Amino acid sequence: MSSITRVRLKPPYLLLIGAETDPTFAKTAQGIVQWCPDKVAGQLRFEGSQVDLGVSDMSLTEAVEAGCGSLVLGVAPVGGAVPESWWEVIEQAARAGLDIVSGLHLRLRDRPGLAEVAEAAGAQLVDVRVPPAKLPVGNGKPRTGRRILTVGPDCAIGKKYTALALDHALREAGEKSTYRATGQTGIMIAGEGIPIDSVVADFISGAAELLSPDNDPDHFDVIEGQGSIFHPGYSGVALGLLHGSQPDGFVVCHDPLRKTVSGWPHYSLPPLAEVIEAHIRMGRRTSPDIRCVGVSVNTSKLPADERAAYLDKLAEETGLPCVDPLIDGCNGIVEHLLDTLGRSHSAH
Amino acid sequence: MSSITRVRLKPPYLLLIGAETDPTFAKTAQGIVQWCPDKVAGQLRFEGSQVDLGVSDMSLTEAVEAGCGSLVLGVAPVGGAVPESWWEVIEQAARAGLDIVSGLHLRLRDRPGLAEVAEAAGAQLVDVRVPPAKLPVGNGKPRTGRRILTVGPDCAIGKKYTALALDHALREAGEKSTYRATGQTGIMIAGEGIPIDSVVADFISGAAELLSPDNDPDHFDVIEGQGSIFHPGYSGVALGLLHGSQPDGFVVCHDPLRKTVSGWPHYSLPPLAEVIEAHIRMGRRTSPDIRCVGVSVNTSKLPADERAAYLDKLAEETGLPCVDPLIDGCNGIVEHLLDTLGRSHSAH
Repeated sequence: MSSITRVRLKPPYLLLIGAETDPTFAKTAQGIVQWCPDKVAGQLRFEGSQVDLGVSDMSLTEAVEAGCGSLVLGVAPVGGAVPESWWEVIEQAARAGLDIVSGLHLRLRDRPGLAEVAEAAGAQLVDVRVPPAKLPVGNGKPRTGRRILTVGPDCAIGKKYTALALDHALREAGEKSTYRATGQTGIMIAGEGIPIDSVVADFISGAAELLSPDNDPDHFDVIEGQGSIFHPGYSGVALGLLHGSQPDGFVVCHDPLRKTVSGWPHYSLPPLAEVIEAHIRMGRRTSPDIRCVGVSVNTSKLPADERAAYLDKLAEETGLPCVDPLIDGCNGIVEHLLDTLGRSHSAH
Repeated sequence: MSSITRVRLKPPYLLLIGAETDPTFAKTAQGIVQWCPDKVAGQLRFEGSQVDLGVSDMSLTEAVEAGCGSLVLGVAPVGGAVPESWWEVIEQAARAGLDIVSGLHLRLRDRPGLAEVAEAAGAQLVDVRVPPAKLPVGNGKPRTGRRILTVGPDCAIGKKYTALALDHALREAGEKSTYRATGQTGIMIAGEGIPIDSVVADFISGAAELLSPDNDPDHFDVIEGQGSIFHPGYSGVALGLLHGSQPDGFVVCHDPLRKTVSGWPHYSLPPLAEVIEAHIRMGRRTSPDIRCVGVSVNTSKLPADERAAYLDKLAEETGLPCVDPLIDGCNGIVEHLLDTLGRSHSAH
């Protein structure tokens, strides 16, 4: 895959926390620390900061000395507007040659003068919400390697977390696996990816094809799903991603207590069986043997003593491994995957 | 709908033909003449032109005197590059205050100096492939009015033509109907619309909702379909358009002799029954009572004496009106629609 066609980030990261950060918006930075601690050099906090990611505090000077590659804005400022104190640090970092990585809605190059400073220092301004410029139309041709896509009946139901946890579990099991990021947080964690919901409509499945290219026959790409084919706002993204990913299998993310689409209360969620059946029906257009390989359940709102029984019952109903990745990890799904698709030669 | 959210063109049109036009690429201009002759003032041909649209030849000066609103580039130059002789006329037209309307891949404002000339004269540069900037996410809320979407198993299978013919037939029958354009040629014909395949993925269904807003209960929006939910490259566009359009009914465009996806020969086309069933299954997410209301068949490649029998047989198999709009028009579908949905008070 050429560098033209995907976002790529330069580790290690200095995570900008500042002082005006809304702790509820620090999820991206927390995800980076959780899933790729080896890419994190430290956090840059201002006096009075309410957020602590539990990594080393580091000044910009220390970060430069430590060989940091990027200053990462993985938090959102209170109220949305970036405070001047942040811009000062951003400009200093760019002047010192650090790439600036932003997941904010604003574009870094719209900040007057910043692009010039960065260019003079050889630093990149990376807006992870901005897709690569030259994407192809999907060609639908079969690819080598194994691909697993996380899907669901709604947004924000665990597709990113499940993909990260499944990739982690596959690698722990000695399998070759790569997490493929399709959203801003995932891209910051993976260090590369394509923000699939920001590409032009004609290129959704083409972008998905680029994201999970030909690979070793026993290599897994675990692709972060976006939206839902049932979503009244985002179904186009989800179907293009499903067709372009050509997944051998998909994992359905399920929240037993969610009854309606988040933010679309006039839409009820389809039953799990319908979610599975619809993805098979639509997905087999580009992946004839597509199957559901597991259910990832958010059991956090169930009483603690009912979780195991709930998962057991669901597993019986569906005939599939049902796990809560936060509690059980994804080993159950990994075992099922390897039983179904075969184990790699390198792992055994 | 605010002017921010859709492309709008200013008639009457002077159609630029030039001399270096590839006759096979003059389809857009021919479509404009066929479907909206009242918007066409004339054609501007250079010496040696191989293309004649059958409308008045007109110089730029005559067009200005006749009150033309726009110079329309509804043809493609041989080889793709716009000849300097065209640019001269385009610049003169802009200087005279005519809007410039282009369906070409290049962007008008990338021509050095043209934007300044246009601005000084109060002329707009309109690239119909460029979608409006501020589109919403689809909200999926029910809307008033009747909506019909044309769909199919592939691209370039008659969705635009069928929508135009159905809109025409509805108005001929005394019904209130508006053709809603989603592609460049359709936008030039309708004078407005949204190029749905060029919007950012997150906004496909939101754009479709804007395109067919609340209307009188007995008013029809006939929406031009794009792509196909079965298309390995363009399924995301098609599903977002299906969900955002919330159609009461859809017409399937069918080519009895086409066996594979055009340009994707490794993909066979699904059978007609599967096309109908899949659109009902997916479409009812936002339009619970969605149904197929007819089949539009391209019989041009069948022997002339077999066409009627073919359509009769298909109508028997599907229980739906099956027409070739080029030969029969769409009255059969109109009758079925009005029998099913009821006739407007104004018509009878």
